[in-house]
Amino acid sequence: MAGKEAPMATRRAQTSRESRQLLIRAATELFAERGFRQTTFADIANRSGISRGSIPWHFGNKDGLLQAVIEELTVNMADLDSAAHDLADGLDRVRDQVRQPTMRLLITLVAEAVEPGSPVHAFYAQLHDTIRKWVAGWVAESDIPTGTSRADFVAVVVGAIIGLHQQWRVAPESVDLDRCFVALKAMSISGRDAT
Amino acid sequence: MAGKEAPMATRRAQTSRESRQLLIRAATELFAERGFRQTTFADIANRSGISRGSIPWHFGNKDGLLQAVIEELTVNMADLDSAAHDLADGLDRVRDQVRQPTMRLLITLVAEAVEPGSPVHAFYAQLHDTIRKWVAGWVAESDIPTGTSRADFVAVVVGAIIGLHQQWRVAPESVDLDRCFVALKAMSISGRDAT
Repeated sequence: MAGKEAPMATRRAQTSRESRQLLIRAATELFAERGFRQTTFADIANRSGISRGSIPWHFGNKDGLLQAVIEELTVNMADLDSAAHDLADGLDRVRDQVRQPTMRLLITLVAEAVEPGSPVHAFYAQLHDTIRKWVAGWVAESDIPTGTSRADFVAVVVGAIIGLHQQWRVAPESVDLDRCFVALKAMSISGRDAT
Repeated sequence: MAGKEAPMATRRAQTSRESRQLLIRAATELFAERGFRQTTFADIANRSGISRGSIPWHFGNKDGLLQAVIEELTVNMADLDSAAHDLADGLDRVRDQVRQPTMRLLITLVAEAVEPGSPVHAFYAQLHDTIRKWVAGWVAESDIPTGTSRADFVAVVVGAIIGLHQQWRVAPESVDLDRCFVALKAMSISGRDAT
């Protein structure tokens, strides 16, 4: 009996992990498409094919689900940093990341990011901080304009990334993302080839 | 009789204009504090001291009220452009504008900016376009880095403004807005004093 229970428990755990992943994927898509508040458990159940009742079982409540979505996103973005050699390479990788459909989430969630009590606020504060650390790591001392600190320079570069993403999401026909990232490199990496 | 009616009608129009302005001001504050969807007519009536029933009379529906809020904001921002001499001066003025409490509205509304049917979408597309035009007007040909077009350079500068604003709203303690604008000027205005 004990010998039979183990594989069944394993299969059950496997199914549970798969359901969890399917729910996270559906929630990520829906939050990105219509925003956090406008998405219901019923929408997520429909999109994922997983029963509505299992959502609180996995995540407690909607904030818990959002937390899981955010953790998944953060894990996926962490690859970005470890792979980049320098600012030019890092910016190329960021540009490719910005194009991902799920990154639209960063626009639909930002309203909640300025509500101090919201889990989204902590996420954005953390996300901005993480990206600033990455960019700081990619920047050579020689790149920083005279009279400017590394921290301020980095905040401007991260600002440009955030603001190019926003302009492009709002009106993709008005902003050429590839060429704008070339311009950002030209402005950020002085005195050497930026393309 | 006709002689008495005219001043009364004038007074009535005056009161109506004042009510309208009070409603727009209250709505601007509330949309900035809690977002568009989270604000009700009852909230706006409470904040403004104007009766709830007069809101549809003035604006039709909530979208109409939002339209009025946006128009007011756009008019206030237009002064910015006409007063600026060049990019350094323009960026100083933009930085001061970014600090205004009502500008928080630009963060709480941005989620709706990526919903193509929403009036907010048209507003952001227009707003980004307007600011890009201002910045393009402030930029001398000599400011643009080699190998970069004016349009791309301008989108990066506008991006940096948007993204600095966002980082500062999320975590004001993490971003020194004054110093970051100095850094943005140093990156944007090559070969001459940017401070």
